[in-house]
Amino acid sequence: MATEREQQLMRRALELAANGPTRGVNPQVGCVIVSPDGTVLGEGWHRGAGSAHAEVDALSHVGSDAACGATAIVTLEPCNHTGRTGPCVDALLDAGIARVVYAVDDPGTVSSGGGARLAANGVSVESGVLREQAEAFLGDWLTTARSGRPLVMLKWASSLDGRTAAADGSSKWITGDQARADVHRLRTRSDAIAVGTGTVLADNPSLTARTATGELYEDQPVPVVFGIRDLPVDALLRQHPHPHVRLDGRDLESDLRTLRERGIRSLFVEGGPTLASAFVRAGLVDEFVVYLAPAVLGGDHLALTDLGVGNIAEAHRLSLIDVARVGDDVRLTLRPKGRN
Amino acid sequence: MATEREQQLMRRALELAANGPTRGVNPQVGCVIVSPDGTVLGEGWHRGAGSAHAEVDALSHVGSDAACGATAIVTLEPCNHTGRTGPCVDALLDAGIARVVYAVDDPGTVSSGGGARLAANGVSVESGVLREQAEAFLGDWLTTARSGRPLVMLKWASSLDGRTAAADGSSKWITGDQARADVHRLRTRSDAIAVGTGTVLADNPSLTARTATGELYEDQPVPVVFGIRDLPVDALLRQHPHPHVRLDGRDLESDLRTLRERGIRSLFVEGGPTLASAFVRAGLVDEFVVYLAPAVLGGDHLALTDLGVGNIAEAHRLSLIDVARVGDDVRLTLRPKGRN
Repeated sequence: MATEREQQLMRRALELAANGPTRGVNPQVGCVIVSPDGTVLGEGWHRGAGSAHAEVDALSHVGSDAACGATAIVTLEPCNHTGRTGPCVDALLDAGIARVVYAVDDPGTVSSGGGARLAANGVSVESGVLREQAEAFLGDWLTTARSGRPLVMLKWASSLDGRTAAADGSSKWITGDQARADVHRLRTRSDAIAVGTGTVLADNPSLTARTATGELYEDQPVPVVFGIRDLPVDALLRQHPHPHVRLDGRDLESDLRTLRERGIRSLFVEGGPTLASAFVRAGLVDEFVVYLAPAVLGGDHLALTDLGVGNIAEAHRLSLIDVARVGDDVRLTLRPKGRN
Repeated sequence: MATEREQQLMRRALELAANGPTRGVNPQVGCVIVSPDGTVLGEGWHRGAGSAHAEVDALSHVGSDAACGATAIVTLEPCNHTGRTGPCVDALLDAGIARVVYAVDDPGTVSSGGGARLAANGVSVESGVLREQAEAFLGDWLTTARSGRPLVMLKWASSLDGRTAAADGSSKWITGDQARADVHRLRTRSDAIAVGTGTVLADNPSLTARTATGELYEDQPVPVVFGIRDLPVDALLRQHPHPHVRLDGRDLESDLRTLRERGIRSLFVEGGPTLASAFVRAGLVDEFVVYLAPAVLGGDHLALTDLGVGNIAEAHRLSLIDVARVGDDVRLTLRPKGRN
């Protein structure tokens, strides 16, 4: 059981964690070192990949030997793995920490086991303290660390009848200004944006997130291109602030793991129909965002192609999360049935 | 100018009109015969095709000669045409009516001109009294009498990506119970329901309007089948309470005129894709009602096929009138841009 003081300091540790960077491969983690009488000896947080973990940062503020017999309150299970920095477990043991209280188990397969190793070395270990708050705080870092892949949001914009372009391929613009601005807001919130080579060749997109006046947002998603065809040397995406990532798309699950290992937690898939349909078919879409324009087009340019649905019983059923009017258009947000 | 008393009695005439039948080729019309001192001498309304018109009905309640010098207040311009009943203009002139006050001009090409003929015969004629209320009251009778065709509502139910069936043609059910119940309510409010022969052959629909428990609604739409292929002798629609109407669909405008001449003011087009697309292409859809299921299907079974839209500038643009969640589905109601 954690004491009331320990719970209070876990809330403090969560506040400290929030000082760290929200993007990238590493989580936001906070740590407080507290003496047996409840005095805070040091505080720390993780400042991002390659820098000291929260526990080591907190210990660095504690005078030598002062940590001996103290308690470490940390939002995530101390790591048991040497990456770009050494394992936190060793740092805690070396400092003579007598008790470790943490909120969330480390979801990593190589870095986990820290709690058990501390306990095996005679440290009193208490896990799960304020777990819910800490899990909510860790958000998509935790989700994607557990699944080993980014969250995938699939977006398309079509007419009411599911078409993304007229017969000649023209598509500018099916939806209105406000819907397009909404898409750019979703882009800037995503770690990466994906298209297939077909879309690069057909539309030459810049894959940047831009304001209504055409300025670049501060946060730009990393452009990711799936497919094996060569990209033109003058493709606009080559001028993107981030270098683009190429993946062959033959094994989307493996490609997604690669992206997560590079710190990409959220992938915004914008098409075209071949890539979008491949993600749906593989069951790898976590959220659908569909903009429907009040128009009908008919013809062959469809948002999705074949999904391998032979019978209606095999339909990819979704749950409607939100319906909103965005300018003259309608935006529907959905998630696979059974997932929330 | 109409007097205040005449305006008051026009409101009474509209009340009387509402006693008549709401469906069919004839409008609801009411009439009050009033003496020069403002005393109501008789009231009447039109009871439907083949029975006395409102003016004749009202006159029938006035003692002989009592109408001489009186005023007739009538919601629609008196007809000047011998159909199944004689022209009202003659009845009014024969009765010695001195003044006629009416609300809305007769939109009929053969029946109009009554006001002018009355004036030419020395009757004082006042038109346009409470016109707005009377036009609103006449609703789709007036709209369709002016256009010469029924109002066309096109409905489809599809997945988010515009598909109406899986690869094997199975489609029961894409949308949920509540959306299907909603469709049956729209059916019972329509004068007629239309499908193409392809739908009859593929789905064998009954084309009835049914309650959630499968009972027939009291008001059943007349089944209309477009196309030239023979219908099976055991087609379910042959058991419909109304005999079905066959039209070849080669000239939809002409077909619609035929339906309006039979008293059909509203046509609910349910598909399939060939018929739906033909109506859209011809610009003959007054309202789109689209049910979108939270699902994706992919494949070749589309709600609409080709609409002849070569370039995005030629898109059939619509105005979104309403978005509603119906059970798990979304219903969108739209009208052609520029029409309300």
